[in-house]
Amino acid sequence: MSSSHEPTIQKETLYQGKIIDVEVHDVELPDGKTSKREVVKHPGAVAVIGVNEDGKIPLVRQFRKATEEFLLEIPAGKREAEEEAKITAARELQEETGYTAGHLQEMACFYTSPGFADELIHLYLATDLRAGRSQTEADEFLSVEEWTIAEARSALREGSWRDAKTAFAIQSLVAKYD
Amino acid sequence: MSSSHEPTIQKETLYQGKIIDVEVHDVELPDGKTSKREVVKHPGAVAVIGVNEDGKIPLVRQFRKATEEFLLEIPAGKREAEEEAKITAARELQEETGYTAGHLQEMACFYTSPGFADELIHLYLATDLRAGRSQTEADEFLSVEEWTIAEARSALREGSWRDAKTAFAIQSLVAKYD
Repeated sequence: MSSSHEPTIQKETLYQGKIIDVEVHDVELPDGKTSKREVVKHPGAVAVIGVNEDGKIPLVRQFRKATEEFLLEIPAGKREAEEEAKITAARELQEETGYTAGHLQEMACFYTSPGFADELIHLYLATDLRAGRSQTEADEFLSVEEWTIAEARSALREGSWRDAKTAFAIQSLVAKYD
Repeated sequence: MSSSHEPTIQKETLYQGKIIDVEVHDVELPDGKTSKREVVKHPGAVAVIGVNEDGKIPLVRQFRKATEEFLLEIPAGKREAEEEAKITAARELQEETGYTAGHLQEMACFYTSPGFADELIHLYLATDLRAGRSQTEADEFLSVEEWTIAEARSALREGSWRDAKTAFAIQSLVAKYD
């Protein structure tokens, strides 16, 4: 298999935004025909799951405009240019929940929507959490909740985690404690 | 909490494409200030994990232009207007892998990238698989692989599933068999 199975013949950048860019590529298919591919470029993100000394998982509930819903998610944020993913993860955890982590270990790294976007998430397990004061950005309005592992497992069985990275992270954590 | 925490003051549709549309919303924040939200509209998708009578999981390997990588994923496809998710799931499984499923059970339903997109995936567990002939669409080039649960579990431990929905589905399946 070639490393570029669908080479771009021509590319048009339709939008350059604050977080995402949108491109349309005319690509050559393996049979020589052409097709269009819509691509959302995203800087990537980090997400952090941890358990505090009381055995609780810090989570953030926030309104997501894209989905027009309040979602309960693990702390997360987009990658910053010239900042290591692990450092961004430590910072986002602290800003959103107040917790600082003694250790961060990468659990997984995956694309969220490879059919149309290049967003890659680095997921970390945070241990040795110390509570502190949260400090969110100007346009972030979120509330912190702390769930026991039993509560998280119960929501998993009911299929009620609505955010993919959170569902995966909760499932990984539950597997560790089962 | 209001059901519309960030009401749209003004919306601009920047792109209407084959699969995605792109909108920018000027929204009102809870403190009365305004901010911009970039939103990718997507029809949603279905994905299917199953185990055949030999205890193997059908997977598809395909080039994803957005990520410029070949990815190994569970069979999936986008929602079609006026088609139930379960019917689309049965069809995608058959088209991509040749398998027909006697039963499809919804395992989870989640947003893949709620920070910027409304893509909602319905994930199904397929049982009573019967092998048949695959039939992919004109611009789809994929190869089918069948992995044992032990192989899937091993890749999970190595963190080597690169697609979020697939990582979650494999983890769910492995949990059932552990």
